Amino acid sequence: GAAAVAPTEDPYRNEPRRHPALIVRSDKPFNGETPAELLVASPVTPNDMFFVRHHLPVPVIDNDKFTVTVEGAGMRSLQLSVQQLQQNFKKAQVAATVQCTGNRRTEMKAAPAPGGSGAQIKGLDWEVGAISNAEWGGVLLRDVLLAAGLQPGDASVQHIHLIGLDTDMTGTPYAASIPIDKALSEAGDVLLAWEMNGQPIPADHGGPLRVVVPGTTGARSVKWIGRIVASADECQGHWQQKDYKAFSPGTDWDAIDWSAAPAIQEMPVVSAICEPAEGAELSTYDGEVTIKGYAWSGGGRDIIRVDVSADGGKTWSPAKLSKHPHSRPSRAWAWTLYEATLPLPEGFKGQLQLACKATDQSYNTQPEDVSSIWNIRGLVNNAWHKVNVSVVE
Amino acid sequence: GAAAVAPTEDPYRNEPRRHPALIVRSDKPFNGETPAELLVASPVTPNDMFFVRHHLPVPVIDNDKFTVTVEGAGMRSLQLSVQQLQQNFKKAQVAATVQCTGNRRTEMKAAPAPGGSGAQIKGLDWEVGAISNAEWGGVLLRDVLLAAGLQPGDASVQHIHLIGLDTDMTGTPYAASIPIDKALSEAGDVLLAWEMNGQPIPADHGGPLRVVVPGTTGARSVKWIGRIVASADECQGHWQQKDYKAFSPGTDWDAIDWSAAPAIQEMPVVSAICEPAEGAELSTYDGEVTIKGYAWSGGGRDIIRVDVSADGGKTWSPAKLSKHPHSRPSRAWAWTLYEATLPLPEGFKGQLQLACKATDQSYNTQPEDVSSIWNIRGLVNNAWHKVNVSVVE
Ligand SMILES: [Mo]
Ligand SMILES: [Mo]
Repeated sequence: GAAAVAPTEDPYRNEPRRHPALIVRSDKPFNGETPAELLVASPVTPNDMFFVRHHLPVPVIDNDKFTVTVEGAGMRSLQLSVQQLQQNFKKAQVAATVQCTGNRRTEMKAAPAPGGSGAQIKGLDWEVGAISNAEWGGVLLRDVLLAAGLQPGDASVQHIHLIGLDTDMTGTPYAASIPIDKALSEAGDVLLAWEMNGQPIPADHGGPLRVVVPGTTGARSVKWIGRIVASADECQGHWQQKDYKAFSPGTDWDAIDWSAAPAIQEMPVVSAICEPAEGAELSTYDGEVTIKGYAWSGGGRDIIRVDVSADGGKTWSPAKLSKHPHSRPSRAWAWTLYEATLPLPEGFKGQLQLACKATDQSYNTQPEDVSSIWNIRGLVNNAWHKVNVSVVE
Repeated sequence: GAAAVAPTEDPYRNEPRRHPALIVRSDKPFNGETPAELLVASPVTPNDMFFVRHHLPVPVIDNDKFTVTVEGAGMRSLQLSVQQLQQNFKKAQVAATVQCTGNRRTEMKAAPAPGGSGAQIKGLDWEVGAISNAEWGGVLLRDVLLAAGLQPGDASVQHIHLIGLDTDMTGTPYAASIPIDKALSEAGDVLLAWEMNGQPIPADHGGPLRVVVPGTTGARSVKWIGRIVASADECQGHWQQKDYKAFSPGTDWDAIDWSAAPAIQEMPVVSAICEPAEGAELSTYDGEVTIKGYAWSGGGRDIIRVDVSADGGKTWSPAKLSKHPHSRPSRAWAWTLYEATLPLPEGFKGQLQLACKATDQSYNTQPEDVSSIWNIRGLVNNAWHKVNVSVVE
């Protein structure tokens, strides 16, 4: 509890060491993004380069004593160590991309509030790197819930609460919930994971045990999972009810009715250009530009096409896609990397605007500009990604 | 077979009578759309005003002798009359919107091919009315497949073929397939339906028995269903392989690689303005404009917001939504009707461009303009819908 913490102790005194290449967006809590060129360097992001998004201090956990509690009305309460999960349940492996709801907020912040209201977006200054991809190993949350006696079809259970071991100064933990259909679906692939790219999950990524909710915004993939509760109601915590919701472009802070929008779960189709970087200088002698980036969509929807443009979106060409080998139709939880080489007009010198947009298997695509999706929290920015470069001699 | 048809006989001689208010887009086969103002007149579209999209002549069926065949490798073959379906399976009722993949093609046709290629879109001239909503009654396709001995998890079954009784001059029937996961999912709500808004399904809508694949493009909701086959492979028919796929804006007819895009199944988020009509004259004395329309998304994704604009999309206001009472989260198969009243600048006279765009529960939204989604078949147009009106004294 809070009383045990001396007022002079820094709650962030036990933070793990981090790779110096992570681009720090805040120190306490720590938030750091993966450099764009490293995102496209490999289909899975190395553990120490995986973006870090914390809301609270990293909790100090004795891995040997760690257990997760699973409970709910009419269920037997289980307390399970990682070893018990490993011994008593079937192992599941899922390649899944995790993306912060605020990825690419900087572009939205750079755009004026629609209608000239002067409204100001609040949130961390993420560029394109609040997203990473890993191979997760663990057990299906579904299997653990069924072992605890949850009855599929029990209408009194509508949400699964996921409660972390990280707490604020008052002792309130980070918490979220996901809909029961996602948690129980065999095709939902929701994991209690202890493995990340073949290694024990590092403290910064939720070890010894975290939730991975594939296809869903990162905020629901609760790290350091301490308690799982089957409930009739959605989680009433701050991050479920008063954050991670996006409103109409005209809605300012003083006009927000938080109950008017559902908590963000599945994410829309997104893409970004990771190379070249904004402001890069290309040589006119090359006569072409090679664009590399990622595309991803929520809900397991596969990326069926990425279009790239070297004229700001007037004309488009399809890129070459690199599908993750584990993708199955409608369970494409991992991102798609892409690459395209576009010819430049002969002898061209000057400014070029590169752009990309992806189409997913439901034929959803991305809006042209942030202005139509602009929202006061700067969330779910999936506008075309644009990068300005110059071609010089 | 074809040999039985005398060459002088019109295969369209047995077409049913249609409501004269349907807007005819082709006679043979018959294609007619619902007038926009009738779409928003009621949450379910009356049977005789439901849009009609045929690829072939309406088959002549003796309802008393009608059966559907269900079969597949390792399964027992079933032949089931509508009465047997009614007596031996649990009745299911699903409110579901059906939309033609080519809805709103006229807007795409009116836009020039990107890059000045002069490429020409081919397809029926649908405006906003190739979409309608009904309450369907029948049995779950899932239940019938399980009764025929289909084993869930059998990796040799990946697609369910849906073969109609309507045939072309060579005897080839209309056919499509859907992925096994959609067909077998309890949450997929795929129906073999004999009831439409409480009435037997009329011949024009696939009676005595049709498939309704909620959340999926209309082309997979096969009418006059004659045969259902569990298969390892996707349907190889024309409408699955050589149509109902959309390509990059720069792809012209001669460059199409049909195998490069998946058959459209789930549809993207869409919306349209049904009132006022293009070119309408509003009175300056009213000082406001009331906009009515529909919004819908594929895959059961609910509509969480519709934004409307009276300045061509510079500023947006959320509309009031009318949710279908049967909608459940993630199984929102029925459209959402909306209404918004926007004030006009005092004394304003002149031209206004109204616009709408919807956001679904995955926070997918619509692209601003048809140019970025322009495709040679004019499919899946989900750009903002824009309507030009004038305000006069
Ligand atoms: Mo986040
Ligand atoms: Mo269609």
